[in-house]
Parts: sequence; structure tokens; C-alpha cells
Amino acid sequence: MISEKMYELGSKRSVIRELFEFGKKRAAEIGAENVFDFSIGNPNVPAPEAVKKAIIEILEQENPVNVHGYTSAQGDAEVRKTLAESINKRFGTNFGADNLYMTLGAAASISACFLALANPGDEFITFAPYFPEYRCFVEAAGGKLIVVPAQIENFQIDFNEFEKRINEKTKAVIINTPNNPSGVVYTEETIVKLTDLLKEKEKQYGHAIYLISDEPYREVAYDVNVPYVTKYYNDTFVCYSYSKSLSLPGERIGYIVVPDEMEDSKRVYAAVCGAGRALGYVCAPSLFQKVVAKCAGQTSDISIYRKNRDLLYDGLIKLGYKCVKPEGAFYLFPQSLEPDAYAFCERAKKHNLLIVPGDDFGCPGHVRISYCVKTEQIVKSLPAFEKLAQEYK
Amino acid sequence: MISEKMYELGSKRSVIRELFEFGKKRAAEIGAENVFDFSIGNPNVPAPEAVKKAIIEILEQENPVNVHGYTSAQGDAEVRKTLAESINKRFGTNFGADNLYMTLGAAASISACFLALANPGDEFITFAPYFPEYRCFVEAAGGKLIVVPAQIENFQIDFNEFEKRINEKTKAVIINTPNNPSGVVYTEETIVKLTDLLKEKEKQYGHAIYLISDEPYREVAYDVNVPYVTKYYNDTFVCYSYSKSLSLPGERIGYIVVPDEMEDSKRVYAAVCGAGRALGYVCAPSLFQKVVAKCAGQTSDISIYRKNRDLLYDGLIKLGYKCVKPEGAFYLFPQSLEPDAYAFCERAKKHNLLIVPGDDFGCPGHVRISYCVKTEQIVKSLPAFEKLAQEYK
Repeated sequence: MISEKMYELGSKRSVIRELFEFGKKRAAEIGAENVFDFSIGNPNVPAPEAVKKAIIEILEQENPVNVHGYTSAQGDAEVRKTLAESINKRFGTNFGADNLYMTLGAAASISACFLALANPGDEFITFAPYFPEYRCFVEAAGGKLIVVPAQIENFQIDFNEFEKRINEKTKAVIINTPNNPSGVVYTEETIVKLTDLLKEKEKQYGHAIYLISDEPYREVAYDVNVPYVTKYYNDTFVCYSYSKSLSLPGERIGYIVVPDEMEDSKRVYAAVCGAGRALGYVCAPSLFQKVVAKCAGQTSDISIYRKNRDLLYDGLIKLGYKCVKPEGAFYLFPQSLEPDAYAFCERAKKHNLLIVPGDDFGCPGHVRISYCVKTEQIVKSLPAFEKLAQEYK
Repeated sequence: MISEKMYELGSKRSVIRELFEFGKKRAAEIGAENVFDFSIGNPNVPAPEAVKKAIIEILEQENPVNVHGYTSAQGDAEVRKTLAESINKRFGTNFGADNLYMTLGAAASISACFLALANPGDEFITFAPYFPEYRCFVEAAGGKLIVVPAQIENFQIDFNEFEKRINEKTKAVIINTPNNPSGVVYTEETIVKLTDLLKEKEKQYGHAIYLISDEPYREVAYDVNVPYVTKYYNDTFVCYSYSKSLSLPGERIGYIVVPDEMEDSKRVYAAVCGAGRALGYVCAPSLFQKVVAKCAGQTSDISIYRKNRDLLYDGLIKLGYKCVKPEGAFYLFPQSLEPDAYAFCERAKKHNLLIVPGDDFGCPGHVRISYCVKTEQIVKSLPAFEKLAQEYK
């Protein structure tokens, strides 16, 4: 009687969310300090003081009717102007307010793009390992998600496998760099090769192939350049969120960039607005629109993630785990110590290690470890990882 | 190439939003004080001081990682418990945390219900005058909106017309009381008659017919009882938003109640969670979840709306306008002075009166006047309404 599809989505919750809920329950049983919960990408580094300061300033100085009132559906014009200028300054782009559409974070950003673009039969290609909710969002928009298998030696793009899958039905390609779950950043070489290929395919098929750059981790990168994709390819959407850069994942705030250079740019922007409307977004949260504008260009203390990465990566390598060294985000994606990552994660649970099987990310034989946790948790967890490894010796 | 449906939704924006944007432009030209913008339901009464106090208390006392972090998808458990207790206290219900699902406001609340319920071919019935976005949300969920014509003498329900439209394909009935745009509150008699009929039809068709009570204006009511619908009918969703009661429309915060007494309650709740996931909601904004819990049961200063209602209603009646006296919300819905309400509203624009044709609310020959504006604007606008009326004499 009700929608079985929605029942299934709601009852078979994502593995990550399941583990998150399990972790909360387990913590209540044995104490949070004894649960090594590496399951969820909930930043543990607090929002910078600038966020608190901005909120209080806005509350003290501005009229509450404006602060908490509806903004235009695409977001407050002043906010969009400020953010566009900040992007231009940092990345040498040339966006204006009308190239930005404020959203309820990354999930809303990509959902609105998918719905704006998808016609029945359209295919959306992504590269393993990939964020599992992509499937849910693409299918909700009426599209079909096509996954290119991972190039496991370095988690860049396997172009042979990609070329086998791109075809006339390809509406868009989704990339996520720095990547969840691998932590890998696509090199400029990868971006150039990808966008050159897309340009060639656009000509061959005679229609636009959009590139959706899902980049909530842009600022969480260690000594490495994260290419700004609109500079390489006109038909690029940038989907951004402040969840990680300002540690505001619960506040649901981000944006989409639709560059003027995109084919049919104005029509596409209107379709994004239409998608946001159909999805019931109305407008992005108004106070936090103003907050992120006041904090434009700032980030949380990323150095803590780097410290965690070094500690956990070095620790696991020493214990014999195999892992591509990540240069961004806050995930490690090592190989599981048995081919079945689910079985491996179940075994890890017995040591109170909550880690996520790679299968749902389209990459079996691997596990995701979110290291956006207290450094102390990493230190305390290493003996548990050691015991886990010993089970396989 | 892109989705034409989304392009259309995004380019043919709702009449209300169009007028809102026009009003902002016009204000820049001739000064805000000379534009009598009655187009949008953006509360002009500020959020109560308690909201500001709650925000600052939370920021001062709680860990920012928790304040701004992800909550469970259905909302923070403590928040849901507090809100359930507040509802129970005020309305004599018996809900617990697990009956509530926190949302991004009213649009998200009803969108999630529609998507949770709809299977292809399902019909959703509502009563004119109705909020025009219902059509957009029902169709986005794959359902079909069926409209029962208005009973224009009092804007209660025309049960003859309703009985002609309810049938085996009816999945749900949507009511909105206090009503946008008529301001009318359904009497207990109307609710009893409606729910008795629904019970009879459930038996006749052998399946649940859900009642979706969209009630963002519950607290904006003047000396009149707004029946709490779950007490009359088990298969009721309550869709609530704090946009009006706490003057937080831009913050996107509300909830859905799924009572235990509903048929298949647990499965329906799971489907609501699934719908929220598919729509990209992730979780309701975390800070404002905590804020509304701290402000449970409080409201903005509703007396200002009553004063505005009296002033505008009495003024218009004196000028010869015909209007059902509204007992809630902050809208007046008088008859237009010519049969074509669009033409009437265009004529009104020339007097800098921005009012909305009733056609989009399924009720031609009427116009919506949102009186959630400064009382001064109402006083200043009456001569313009007089001039407008004189054009028809």
C-alpha cells in the first residue's frame, strides 16, 4: 500500500548510518571511550570560533525578521555574491552571484543536479570507490548509476574501464575528490585526461556530458593541489558543502556552481531551481547562509586530521595492513585481511572497532576507516587493530 | 537534454515567489515604504527573544561538535522526546520520540509523506483553496492531485463535491487548517464529518486512506479551537513547521508525527525515513532542532497578526470588498472585483498593491492578501485599496 521502495530505503538504512546507530548503543553499554567508532564522517574538529562569532554578531546586529526569514529560493543575493568572490579569489575563476545556488549541503547539491538533468534512460557514471548514497539519489531522480571499477593500486581513474562504459546515454559523470572513502585526490593529470576524453565524447555524441564535481572535502587536503574543475571543462557543476570545511555537517549548508560557460547555462540553472523546488528545499537555512558568507575562505583546524592520518596510516602499515596513502578527506581505505570485507568488519566489531565494508562503496576487499575522531581514540585503537590482524596470522 | 519538467518548474516559478521578487525590485526603485507587498507569507513578527536566548545558550554551553554535528536521520532523540511531551501536554495526545520525524519545515514534511505513500496511479485529494505547491510536491512523488472545489460561502468542506472525487485510488487526503489562503479554521463539526466519512470509505475500499494534516498555522488562530486531528482519526500524519509559530521560515525546521495508532505505523515511519533519504534531507538542521526543543510551546507575538486582521478586514469590508472573516493564519481571501483575478491583481499592481490571484489556489475570482506585514503598511495601503475599488464603480 505504501511505497515499498521508500520503505526499503528507510528500513535498510545505509551501512554507515547503521554502524553509527550501533556505535551510539554500544557506547551506552560499555562507555564511549571503549568504542572505537570509525564509522561516520562526522567531523570531530569543532567549527572555528569564527562561526560562533558570526552567529552572535548576526543575532546582535541584524533584524531577526531578516535573519530567520525566507531568502530567495536560490539563496540570499548578497551571500551568493560574497561566496562567488571568495571562490574567484582562491581559484582564479570568474563567477557572480547568479552562478551560485545555495543548498542544504552536499546531498541536496548533488540530488538537485541529478534531478535537474535526468530524463528516463539517462546514465550517470561514477568511479569506485564512491559514496553509496549516489545510487539512492541518482535512482530517485530517475537515472541509472553506472560504476567504473576501482583502480586499486592508486585509486585514480581506470580509463580503459571508463571508456567501456561511457556511451550516448551518459548524461553526467560524477567525481569526488578528495575522495570518500579512499582519501585520494585526483591529480591534475587525471583531471586533464578525464576532461579531454569528455570533450571528445561530447563531440562524438553531439550532446553535453556534464561533469558533477562533488567536493565537500576540497579544503581537507594535505600539501596537494586539488584542481578546480570548471577551469578544465565548461560543462562542470561544482557541488559544495560546508559540512567538512567548517565542521557544520548537521546544519545542511552548501551550494552548487553553474558556470556561464556551461552549455545552456541559464536553462540548466533554472532546472536546478526547479529541482530544488520539487525536492521541497524552499531555501537553504537562512542564518547559516549568512554565517558561511561571514566565514568565507576560513576552515576548521585541518592540521588535526593530518596528525590523525599520519598516526593511523603509519600505525596500520607497521601492523602489516595495505593501504594507499590518502592526501585528503579524513578516511583511510585499507584492504581487508580476508576477501570478504563484511566478515572482516564483523570480526572487527568484536574488538569494538567500527569500520565500514568497502562493498557498498563499490570496492570489495577494502574497508573505510573515518579518522575524524579524537587522536586519543586512534592511539587507543591501535592495539585493537593489532589483535584483529593477529587473528589472520 | 536536461529535464524539461524541472526547467519548467524552475523557470515558471510560483506566482507568489514571482511577486516576492517583483516586490523586492520595485522596493529598490520607489522605496520599500511605497510598495504594499502582501504577496508572501514571510512572518513580519520577529522570532521571540527565547529563540535568540536559546541559540546563545546552546553555543555557550554545548560542545560545537555536537551542536553542529549530524543527528540521527529522524532527528535528535532528546529533541523528539521534548517535542512529543510538549504536544502531549497541549493536546492530550500520547506520543513518544519515535512518533516524530524532524524535517526541514512544512514543504519537506509533506513532500516526505507524499513520497512515502505514493505508488503509480495514486490520487491525493485536497480542498480548494489550497497551497499551490501541493501539486508540485504530489506530482514529484509520482501521485496525482485531485482538487475538491471550494465552498466559497464559508471555506469549510463541500462534502458533496468531495464524495464525487474519493475512490479506490485515493491514497490520502490533505487538509490545511488554519488555511492558507483563506485563513479559515475547520470546525470540529467539519473534522468529525470528514473523518467519519474517511472511516466509512476505508471500510468500503478495504485499505487505509491517510489524512495529511498540514498545520504550520496551528498556533496562529484567534479565539478558536483548532482540533488536533489524530484524536479523530488514526491514519493521520501531522505535518508541522516552526516557520510561522516561531517566525523561522528561512531556517527550515519542523516535524512529522506518525501515531502508533496508524495502520502499519512502523512501516509507514520507515517509509518516511526512506523518503527523507531519497530527497537528500540527511537530517533537519541540527542547531535549530535544539532551539525549537528549548522553545517548545512558545510562539511569536500572535496578537500583532490579530490586530492586522481586524484592521484590514474591517477596512476592506467598509470599502465594499466581500470576504469570509478568517479566524487564523495571516491571510485574507476576498473576492476580486472582476471575475478575472489575474486582471484584478495586475490592476492592483498599478497601485503598488502586490496581491496574489486565487486561481493558483484553485479558487478563481478571489485574491490572497498576506497581512503578516507592518501594521503601518496596512494603514497606508487602505487608500490604495479604495482607489482600486473606485475603478470598478
